[in-house]
Formats: sequence, structure tokens, C-alpha cells
Amino acid sequence: MKKKIKKLKPKNAPGFRDLEGNLLFMKESMIEDIKYCFKLYGFEPLETPAFEISENIGKFLPDEDRPMSGVFGIKDENEWLSLRYDLTAPLSRYFSQNFRELPSVFKRYQVGQVWRNERAGPGRFREFTQIDADIVGSRSSLADSELIILLAQILTRLFDLSKFIIKVSNRKLIQGLLDDLKIYSETQKLKVIRSIDKFDRLGPLGVKNLLQKGRRDPSGDFTTGADLSDEQVAKIIGSRDVKGFLQYKNVIEIEDFSNNDTFIEGLNELKEVFEKTNKTKFLDKIIFSPEIVRGIEYYTSTIFEASITDEIKNKKGEPIISGAIAAGGRYDGLIERFTNNNYPASGLSIGIDRIVAYIKDTTDLVFGEKFDKLTSINGPVVIAVMDKNLINSYLEILNQLRESDIRSEIYLGNKDLKNQMIYANRKNSPAVILIGNDEYLNNKITIKDMKNQKQTTIDKKNLLNEIKKLTKNN
Amino acid sequence: MKKKIKKLKPKNAPGFRDLEGNLLFMKESMIEDIKYCFKLYGFEPLETPAFEISENIGKFLPDEDRPMSGVFGIKDENEWLSLRYDLTAPLSRYFSQNFRELPSVFKRYQVGQVWRNERAGPGRFREFTQIDADIVGSRSSLADSELIILLAQILTRLFDLSKFIIKVSNRKLIQGLLDDLKIYSETQKLKVIRSIDKFDRLGPLGVKNLLQKGRRDPSGDFTTGADLSDEQVAKIIGSRDVKGFLQYKNVIEIEDFSNNDTFIEGLNELKEVFEKTNKTKFLDKIIFSPEIVRGIEYYTSTIFEASITDEIKNKKGEPIISGAIAAGGRYDGLIERFTNNNYPASGLSIGIDRIVAYIKDTTDLVFGEKFDKLTSINGPVVIAVMDKNLINSYLEILNQLRESDIRSEIYLGNKDLKNQMIYANRKNSPAVILIGNDEYLNNKITIKDMKNQKQTTIDKKNLLNEIKKLTKNN
Repeated sequence: MKKKIKKLKPKNAPGFRDLEGNLLFMKESMIEDIKYCFKLYGFEPLETPAFEISENIGKFLPDEDRPMSGVFGIKDENEWLSLRYDLTAPLSRYFSQNFRELPSVFKRYQVGQVWRNERAGPGRFREFTQIDADIVGSRSSLADSELIILLAQILTRLFDLSKFIIKVSNRKLIQGLLDDLKIYSETQKLKVIRSIDKFDRLGPLGVKNLLQKGRRDPSGDFTTGADLSDEQVAKIIGSRDVKGFLQYKNVIEIEDFSNNDTFIEGLNELKEVFEKTNKTKFLDKIIFSPEIVRGIEYYTSTIFEASITDEIKNKKGEPIISGAIAAGGRYDGLIERFTNNNYPASGLSIGIDRIVAYIKDTTDLVFGEKFDKLTSINGPVVIAVMDKNLINSYLEILNQLRESDIRSEIYLGNKDLKNQMIYANRKNSPAVILIGNDEYLNNKITIKDMKNQKQTTIDKKNLLNEIKKLTKNN
Repeated sequence: MKKKIKKLKPKNAPGFRDLEGNLLFMKESMIEDIKYCFKLYGFEPLETPAFEISENIGKFLPDEDRPMSGVFGIKDENEWLSLRYDLTAPLSRYFSQNFRELPSVFKRYQVGQVWRNERAGPGRFREFTQIDADIVGSRSSLADSELIILLAQILTRLFDLSKFIIKVSNRKLIQGLLDDLKIYSETQKLKVIRSIDKFDRLGPLGVKNLLQKGRRDPSGDFTTGADLSDEQVAKIIGSRDVKGFLQYKNVIEIEDFSNNDTFIEGLNELKEVFEKTNKTKFLDKIIFSPEIVRGIEYYTSTIFEASITDEIKNKKGEPIISGAIAAGGRYDGLIERFTNNNYPASGLSIGIDRIVAYIKDTTDLVFGEKFDKLTSINGPVVIAVMDKNLINSYLEILNQLRESDIRSEIYLGNKDLKNQMIYANRKNSPAVILIGNDEYLNNKITIKDMKNQKQTTIDKKNLLNEIKKLTKNN
């Protein structure tokens, strides 16, 4: 009796996924476009490692208050190491370590994977690609407006100009209003800000729970609340009303809303930013919106986020609520953790995987012609193996095609011609080259146009001309 | 008294490093070139996550016998997860999971970070970028030769054609010879193969120790040996002699060396591979060399590795021993771990970080003109801030430059003109634009050519023409 060996069951680790084919082509092409814009704006690249000393990057997560969320940690010989959860904390470490050799204003971009040790669930992933651009060492509002304009330029390059909006606010507005409500504890303030940030996702009742004693989510996890008084809660929930603060759309209109110093400072900074963005062609796409507060602790001033404005539908035709696809802001205190000097900083982060997920899950062409072009991308020309004795002849043609920069390959399996055609189809080949003994003896080549399923036999010397007609979209 | 807050000391985690500036530009540009070649040869991209279920990827490390080397593991809710240590093990998992939807011959490439939990030391890093191309589902020697030719094409694109060599052998040769030496245990065979693989690094004495009882390395770590007899050891060490097996340079010459079946099978496979590579323009760069055995367990047949042939010197003028910069081979058994069907496979892996390290550590221009061009890459045009009241005028010019695809920025700091010039220099700017009140009132612009340190004042309307002359190498 033959011994049966137990086979492993191949599957992804929980919360992790693969990406392939045209979606990956598209992701890579978008990343190239984004890098192009970063360089155009004078940013230089940086690559930092996946692991950092835990103490150095801390734990400034947007959902720090969600149970079971956090960083992946490993105990090394003498200390704890963490997998980076964003690209901002490693930048702070890098800048503090190297600032003597860096330009006085340091503009860097970085593309890399980040990890969050969340409980895995539908649509909740534990690894994603982040694309960041940051300016360290400038306190000027010019740096903030530069980042916002840069983001508008990138989104215009990726999508259609009409499909997105960038909402801008300033963390000092809400900080000032919380002072007015006599909420002074930094922990409480942060809890309130994070609660407001969840209005879209949890609705007024969920936010109310978070402002009071706390909230249990459907998975059973409990998040402790901000423990505010009923009056404070009512005022915050009320700010979403028609006449409430969070509904204003114009910086000038809210000038009289509060005379708190912090609030007024935020207002003036906002005016400076809009002075610059209003002078660009993106002026209609960059709007004031106090409803955005951002959940990340370290923001101190300007904050912004971008979203898709078109209604996105999934493949069943149901609308999808689209979250932010990019966001950023000013964080003047983060680098102080390392250096005695104060280095103000401002940055933006693009959620490329969320954009890819929308493309995958929707039928709408919010991504325009570019997507069409990418998803119809041609595969390589396939040289079929009709007769193994003619392999040298096939290799000669393969060389000729590749020398002419035409993507091509000889079929490498051992199946019959019918299955070779299935293979060529699966690879989205524009053409299959067929050379049997007849063709070989008469210096001919048969080309099958895979799009029109038309077959023609040509002189061998015309190969490149004919093939180029069929691959011109490659 | 002011309370002094203890600052964090910014530093990299042990064994991890940053990469920036022109070296990173160069790395990214090389990756683009490599991807281009992969696509030209009909490979499609794949992205798999950093974490895999530990059991699924096993631990097929090249240096499994080195103490303290291994994978980074984390205990998840129900199972152990590992950070991938290469891109081949995740490919096996991915292929087994998805083969029903994939082409019958699956050609994929992947670029990604991998991690090895080694003891950190000089030049020993725990994270690096790997670039792989693999062909799953083809038993044909055409697949092996395709990978070797592809590697030659890539290296020609990256370096000069004269600077590299690809050594090819077949694992069956050494397997057969070990049979002849009556070494039958797979563990013992693997230990011997790994010992031979270390000849260059450890010399005959080090290898002898590894073939006998074992070896203690300078760090104090002990590696258990293969426990061979004195006669067996003498024969293996002797194979490096002038007339010994490992010194042969021609497949035909070693035909009579052994009539072991495995040995002869390997020989025939080698002949088939060279039949194809000898028909390309790379024939002189692809040579038979039995001295390469490769340390990775799972290779079953064709093996190859590429190295730089020029003598490389470090900045002190001392020669550096250059290891393999790329390697690969056939591994027909790896996917069997998941599926009952047997899927033969063959792959190649490029050590891009090792190439980058050579560039960094050497003065020799083994990397040719391309390197020259990249290291002299221009930074952005800098618009100096001479007068804060003229900021709108600066923004207008900035818009104009960026609309014309000229990399540019306004200085965002708050330092004086002298320091702005230092900044522009540090950023390798080709030109600084100077507009003071005089220029502003007369519709003029002063441009400082940073290369020649020459300053000229021009009409505002000629800006683009003049700047394009100075940035034409961008």
C-alpha cells in the first residue's frame, strides 16, 4: 500500500491578500504617475526598513482606541522591534538621525508597505501600500498649500478632474471649540475628535455612545468613551445640524463663531492656505469643510482629505460609501520626541490600495479612459510549438521579436495546439505564430490574429511589419 | 526649574538600514529596467503579502545550517505566521491556491522585500529587496535556457556586456558524484553541497571542517559538520585541484567522469541548455562551471549564478570579493508540498541590494555611463524668496514651470538668501530664480546658473526658454 502524505492547504494568512494581473499593472502604473508628480514638486525619494525600534516609532495609530488594533512587535536580542504602521513615524526617526546632512527644508517621498495588527475581517486588511510626501523644516502655510495642490495634481493625473474633492480644515478650530466647551484634558479631546471623525461610519447614535460611556461594536469589542456631560454631548452632536459649526462651507462665515485664540489662529492659517489654492486651476476642487477632523493624534494645524465624488456602485448595483483616498496635515510636534530643536512638518498620504479596491469592486468607470486602456492591455505574442524539431526556427523568430522590443515567448508546456491556443487566450496574446513543416520549407509564417480570429500566411521576411500592426497598442 | 524631558535616541534597528538620494534613484531605475525585460519575455507581475502561514512556506533557507539564522515569526490568534524569507515559497503557495485560474504555464515576476532573522553584523542585513522571475508548469529545458538568457539580457541592460559572467551547472552532477562516494543520506548530501558552496568564502580548511565534525565561526557560532570519512573528505577537497571535477570548463570533457545515472541525466540536461544559449549573442557570457552548486535545498536540476568579472575595489583601493549578484535554477519538487499533481518549476532571483552596495562601496565605474548619468542627476529649480510680499509672483512662475514639466519649487524655509543658496546647492539645483523688487517692477527675472555660478537677468517672457537650457539633462 502506498503511503499517503498529508498535503498542506494553500491559503493566505488571515487579513492578507495577493494582487495580480491588470489590477497590479494599474497599481504600478499609478505609483509611477504619483512619483513623477512628487519629483516635479522637488521631493526626493527615501526607503526605510520595515522594522523600527518600537520605542522610536511609538504607536500613533488613527484607531488606537479600537481594541485589538495595533502594531506587530517582535522581541529582538535586547529590545522590542515593531513593523512600521505608517511612513511618518519612520520619517521622524530618519530625519532626527540625519538632519545635519539633510537640506534645511527636507522634502521626501516614500512608497512602501505598512502593517497593522488588527483583527482580520471582511475588507479589513493588515498590510497595505502607503505613498507619502512630507516637508520637514517649514512652518510656512506655503508648505501646506503645496501639499494640497500636489494632491490635486496627482488626482487629476489619476482620474478625471471632475471626480474628486479635497476637503480642508484646521485642527485648531475643533481644539478651540472644545476649549469653549470646557473640555481641557488632552485624552478627552482626542477621544472627542476621533468620535466626530466616525460620524459617517457610525451615525449620530454611535458617536453619542463614544462621547458618553463607550460603544460595543458588532464584533463584541468595547471602546471606552470620552465621558462627557449630557450638555457637552448635545452641543457636539448639534454641530452637525443645518446651522451647526460642522456644516459651514466658508471660512469667512465662521469668523464670529468663537473668539477663542486657538480657533482664530486656525482660521487665519486656513485663510493663508486658501489664498494660495484659490490661485490654481484646482480652486473648485479644494474646499473648506470643518466636518473633517482626522483621527490621527499628532496633527496640530492644517488637515485635509480627498475623496471620490461620483457615486460608486458595486457589481450588484448597490452604492458604496467611499472613504478618503488620500489625506494629510501638519504635525509640528512629532520630531520633538527626538531632538531639542523644533522641526515643524507637514505631509500627505495616498491610500493606493483603497483606490485599487474601488476599481476592483465597482463597475462604474470613475477611473476613466486610462483604466480602459490598462485593462485591455495586450499580453505577449506566443510562438506555438507545432513541431519540436523546428525549435531552432522558433528561437530565431523569438530573438527577432524581442530584439525589436515586442513582448513575446515560445510556448513552454507540452500540450497540443488546441491547448496552446487556450493558453494564448488566457495570456491575452494579440497574435500566435504558427510554423509547421509546410511553412518552414517555404520560408513562410502563419499568424493568427487573436482579436479577430483571422489567420494569414506571410513571407518570413515580413514578420516584423505584420506583427507590429497587431501589437501596436502594447 | 524647567523639567527636562528625556529625548529618544534616533537609530536604525540592528541589521536594518535606510536608502536615499541618488543610490535610491539608481535602484528604482534598475528595477524599472528589469521589469521591462520581464514583460518583454512574457512574464506577468504578482504581489504577495509579507506574512504567510508559517507551515505553508516552511524554512528552505540557503543558510539553514547557520545558527541564529531563520525567519521572523509571530504567533497569531490560531497559528504561527512568518515574514517571507524569499519570493519562491510564497509563489508555491499562491500557485497551488490558484492554479485552476492560471495559464497552464505560469510565468510571473515579483519585486519585494524579504526578511531573514540573522544575527546582525557588518554587511549582514536582515531585510533586502528581491527580484524574481519564475516559470511554473514547464519541464522543458527551454524554460531553463529562457531564464538564463533573460538574466544575460537584464545584466547587459544594467551594466556593460563585458562586465559579467553567468556560470551554469546542474545539481544532478554533484548528486551523482556523491552517490559514487557512497554518501546516500539526503541530510549529509545537503551539508556537503552547502560546504562546497562556501569554498570561496571559507577556503579549503573551513570547508574541510564542515565536511568533518563542524566549524566554529569568528562570532563563536558552531555549525555541525557532515561527518564524512577522511577518504570522502579528501576526494571532495581534491575535486578543486587542477584536474579535479570542479575545475572543468567544458560539458563534453566530463562525460567520462562518472557513469552514474543521475550524473548522466544532469549532463544531458546541461547540453540541452547550452544548445539554446549558444545560439544567442550572449554565448560567451554563459559558461559551464561545475564549481557552482548553490546552497538552497530545493534545487533539483539546472542551477546558475551571475557575478561581476571586473575586479572591484573599495574606496581605499583594496579589492572586494564580489559574490553572486543573481542566481537561479530548477526546483521540481517544491509545489508538490501542496498538490498531488507535480508542477515542475524554474526560477531566477536578482540581488538588487548587493548591486547597489557595490555601487556605493566602490570607486570603479563597473556600472558604466548609466551610473554617471544618474549620479549627476539634477535637482529641482529653486525659486528664492527675496521678498515675502512678492510671493504671488513666485507662485505664478512656479505654476508656469511645473505646467511645463520642469521640476521646481519655492524655497519653503525662513532663512536668508545666502542660506537659500546653500539649500539649492544641497538639492543639486541646476538654477535658482531670483526676483527682487527691481526685477518685479521691470518684468525681469534673474537666473543663477548653479553649475557655472553665472547670473543673468532676462525678460520674464523668456523664462521657459532660458530655464530649459539649464535643465535639459533632467
